Amino acid sequence: MSQFRVAGIIGKQHQDPQLAGTIARLAAHLRWRGLSVRFDPESAAVAGDAVGGDAGAALSIPALGAACDLIIVVGGDGTLLHAARELAPADVPLLGINLGRLGFLVDISPDHLEERLDQILNGEHHADARAMLEVHTDGTSGRAVNDIVVHKWNSVRMIELETWIDGVFVNAQRSDGVIVSTPTGSTAYALSGGGPLVHPGLDALLLVPICPHTLSNRPLVIGGDSQIELRIRDYEHEQVRLTCDGQINLPLAEGRAIYIRRSPHRLKLLHPRGYDHYSILRAKLGWASERRADGAC
Amino acid sequence: MSQFRVAGIIGKQHQDPQLAGTIARLAAHLRWRGLSVRFDPESAAVAGDAVGGDAGAALSIPALGAACDLIIVVGGDGTLLHAARELAPADVPLLGINLGRLGFLVDISPDHLEERLDQILNGEHHADARAMLEVHTDGTSGRAVNDIVVHKWNSVRMIELETWIDGVFVNAQRSDGVIVSTPTGSTAYALSGGGPLVHPGLDALLLVPICPHTLSNRPLVIGGDSQIELRIRDYEHEQVRLTCDGQINLPLAEGRAIYIRRSPHRLKLLHPRGYDHYSILRAKLGWASERRADGAC
Amino acid sequence: MSQFRVAGIIGKQHQDPQLAGTIARLAAHLRWRGLSVRFDPESAAVAGDAVGGDAGAALSIPALGAACDLIIVVGGDGTLLHAARELAPADVPLLGINLGRLGFLVDISPDHLEERLDQILNGEHHADARAMLEVHTDGTSGRAVNDIVVHKWNSVRMIELETWIDGVFVNAQRSDGVIVSTPTGSTAYALSGGGPLVHPGLDALLLVPICPHTLSNRPLVIGGDSQIELRIRDYEHEQVRLTCDGQINLPLAEGRAIYIRRSPHRLKLLHPRGYDHYSILRAKLGWASERRADGAC
Amino acid sequence: MSQFRVAGIIGKQHQDPQLAGTIARLAAHLRWRGLSVRFDPESAAVAGDAVGGDAGAALSIPALGAACDLIIVVGGDGTLLHAARELAPADVPLLGINLGRLGFLVDISPDHLEERLDQILNGEHHADARAMLEVHTDGTSGRAVNDIVVHKWNSVRMIELETWIDGVFVNAQRSDGVIVSTPTGSTAYALSGGGPLVHPGLDALLLVPICPHTLSNRPLVIGGDSQIELRIRDYEHEQVRLTCDGQINLPLAEGRAIYIRRSPHRLKLLHPRGYDHYSILRAKLGWASERRADGAC
Repeated sequence: MSQFRVAGIIGKQHQDPQLAGTIARLAAHLRWRGLSVRFDPESAAVAGDAVGGDAGAALSIPALGAACDLIIVVGGDGTLLHAARELAPADVPLLGINLGRLGFLVDISPDHLEERLDQILNGEHHADARAMLEVHTDGTSGRAVNDIVVHKWNSVRMIELETWIDGVFVNAQRSDGVIVSTPTGSTAYALSGGGPLVHPGLDALLLVPICPHTLSNRPLVIGGDSQIELRIRDYEHEQVRLTCDGQINLPLAEGRAIYIRRSPHRLKLLHPRGYDHYSILRAKLGWASERRADGAC
Repeated sequence: MSQFRVAGIIGKQHQDPQLAGTIARLAAHLRWRGLSVRFDPESAAVAGDAVGGDAGAALSIPALGAACDLIIVVGGDGTLLHAARELAPADVPLLGINLGRLGFLVDISPDHLEERLDQILNGEHHADARAMLEVHTDGTSGRAVNDIVVHKWNSVRMIELETWIDGVFVNAQRSDGVIVSTPTGSTAYALSGGGPLVHPGLDALLLVPICPHTLSNRPLVIGGDSQIELRIRDYEHEQVRLTCDGQINLPLAEGRAIYIRRSPHRLKLLHPRGYDHYSILRAKLGWASERRADGAC
Repeated sequence: MSQFRVAGIIGKQHQDPQLAGTIARLAAHLRWRGLSVRFDPESAAVAGDAVGGDAGAALSIPALGAACDLIIVVGGDGTLLHAARELAPADVPLLGINLGRLGFLVDISPDHLEERLDQILNGEHHADARAMLEVHTDGTSGRAVNDIVVHKWNSVRMIELETWIDGVFVNAQRSDGVIVSTPTGSTAYALSGGGPLVHPGLDALLLVPICPHTLSNRPLVIGGDSQIELRIRDYEHEQVRLTCDGQINLPLAEGRAIYIRRSPHRLKLLHPRGYDHYSILRAKLGWASERRADGAC
Repeated sequence: MSQFRVAGIIGKQHQDPQLAGTIARLAAHLRWRGLSVRFDPESAAVAGDAVGGDAGAALSIPALGAACDLIIVVGGDGTLLHAARELAPADVPLLGINLGRLGFLVDISPDHLEERLDQILNGEHHADARAMLEVHTDGTSGRAVNDIVVHKWNSVRMIELETWIDGVFVNAQRSDGVIVSTPTGSTAYALSGGGPLVHPGLDALLLVPICPHTLSNRPLVIGGDSQIELRIRDYEHEQVRLTCDGQINLPLAEGRAIYIRRSPHRLKLLHPRGYDHYSILRAKLGWASERRADGAC
């Protein structure tokens, strides 16, 4: 018998032709294996009565977190990022089923849904506790799986920003902003900004300047328990903002410091046994299909 | 006698302790050399009655362009960029006096003001015709010396943008935006975005993606007479904007293409004889004071 | 009738299973269209008696250049680079047939060999005159289509190198070397070194430092008629070398300057009508298959 | 009384006008504070009889390690790197006095020599245990403080290299080589190659590809206890080499894997109290003197 008793299903927000069928298969297989199944409003709406996913019985994501001992996200990495932030305090494991396109986080293909699910239900899984971030500033707080970004908003001016780590001044930079990223986020926006790939098992945080004015300003990799303080110099209201995972957007009170550190919560990701971080990197970054620059053949 | 008869003075917008004195010295020396002097509102306000810079007689920048055969900008590169855009149709030469900090464009130090001015008035100058850009889109148009930037605005979402050059499809990219730059602008925002340094005498344009999603998306250098068309896919109103030289900010009509090309006007910069583009690069980019990375001494 | 009378075939040096068949088809079709066909030693050896490509009648590449009014290269970009350097003084047009893998330069697939060849023989071609480089140093000279590289050799020490352009000092850098590239070479080693993509029609040269010590040292794009002088400071014999297209490797006399400029010769590439530089970039750089970094779906 | 009894002095190899005077002051002050002083051959040769540094009594670096409980390096980072590799098994703390130019590792200026030395002798020091690397390959082994580099040698061909971490395949790359770096080395060659700045307190290793052919090949940051295996495909003897700290150069046996991991030894660096890693970064990378790209003033 499985170690899990109640599974919650969370569906992608934007309609996808594969979504309903995948949720139906998923719910059927979970029940066949003896689990109760609950739905978030998105998956309930899509799955419909056939699988008992009626809208009335749907639970909010935090309520799912309280009711379930396993959460299954059906969608893309964006769906999982959203669910993970909401579920952080519930300390419940997640697994992600992608809708036909491999994600960095949603790594189970619908083609092998039942097989991979059986592995996980049988305890043949790899558990991966990913660090998350939290941000506090006067009157606002947030949480992120990938990254917290401080960036110019509504303005063409660069921002001038001081970075302090563990109470020590690091530098002042003029840039379009800064990305504070977990190792998980190192394959997301931080990578577009020129950051390195950080192994998700490393207890580290990453700071990547966005279009920095000073050419010697480079990405910084620091300890995972660092206390990061960002001070924005001399800006007008609503010209700087905070973003969590590129999904949540927060205004800033003027003249206040921004405090960012690792969250006490972790994202507990389950993967089928045999999970290989580097094979996902190869697939997503196109390392397999090499360009030949000089035709030296 | 000088080839120039009427000089216009344009002053930096934000107060600077050196500004009044520099303008006074400048006006006095120009008159001593037999030129008439006119003032823009900023320099008139600062210079005051002492030098005849009374506010009543001040001319707007375009009117200065029509009345003068030489324009002298006192300020930073930003002051000169602003003046140059306004003066483009007037086809009048400019020279720039910096207020104590060397600029890429304002290269005469107040320390040698009279001496350098004499060289220029005596015809011992180097004339530098810099390409400018113009942008057209439905209902809007603009001009730039450094760069025209299409970028996300008021949004955390990347934008999806197609680039077409001379009617040929180049690529579709997801990014924070794209910088279209002149060679002059290659030391400005394009450099922060990872672009190369392009010699100002080269007839070329530069396209630099901002934080591109696809890692093989690199800066492009293309012919100076290229017709660039940017098409933004599927965006919401007011989530994409156009910026000229980081100073002018234009909204975009939905679903319309953006056309960018070299302007028919050029910025005519005068430098004292002996002007050396690379010595300015060395000074501004800190090439002189080398870091020693490995201490191999 | 075709404008071409005598075609020379140059084959890839390293054995390739497709080579013999492609050369046979090529020779047969050229003869059918009324051209005489000559072979270089490689293609003669591979093609054999069947097509009259016997080893005895083979011509050296320069002799082919003198005897033919069209040269067809069968292989990869490397084969074409080698042929183009040798053929430069002959001023004869080249076209390139790749062996199953698209090149930046060899852009005709064997799948459409006869069809594309007919277009070209019928005059439906796009002629592309690519700039080449030449290098002179005491006792040595060379030529390149892609790039001339000055790099450390046989040593772990960085080299210290001064760059002068048109007699003006640019900078001194400590690095592993410098790549001087044509626009054609901007997709080769210069790209790996962080350089931009330069349109092959632009009259420009590119200088890319290799692992520079000074972080503000960036790629430079300069006019195509620039005279580049590189002076290496204080090095031991055989610790610095010159490479042309990554294929020719030249020693340097101690204490002598290296002079690089555009060659008086150009590489005349023929493409079938409809040639599209950007579609080759998209195919070779993987711009079509976008990574999705953040899975925001 | 100081916790230290016998100090060893190690001098820079290449003559420096400041060296003799600095060693003399150093030896005198150490003796005044009651320590015995020993010299390596370099410092003995330079210091001479005056301070008892006669060549006869000089000890090799490993012998100094056995005889002393404190080692003082006078020179640049290169001098300290060399000493640290030799002293690794001795487990003795080092401190570094620079000769007029701040290093990343030699951070005490001769201007404050006695004052800083007193702080350290009085126990007012900050102890910094830096990770080191070791490399093993068939018949060869080495040790490094900054980095171990596998790179092409005596050849213009790229090398083709597979990376395996903890027995898991990461990728195959074609490049000029790869830099495996400690956090300490992240300010050295790895930085020139485009790597991030890694805090020296972080238990991590850094892999930076040198001019990689595949544009999505990025620096990797992995756990400090990772076992790195590099396999070079298909190379000719003497066309690939191993370098430790850019100082030691090792040949490779053909067809053998290269194993790199953290050394069991650490470099024990002493700094005067108040040591600030980020202030050294600011000074060395020129973060204080910002370039102003666009002159927006």
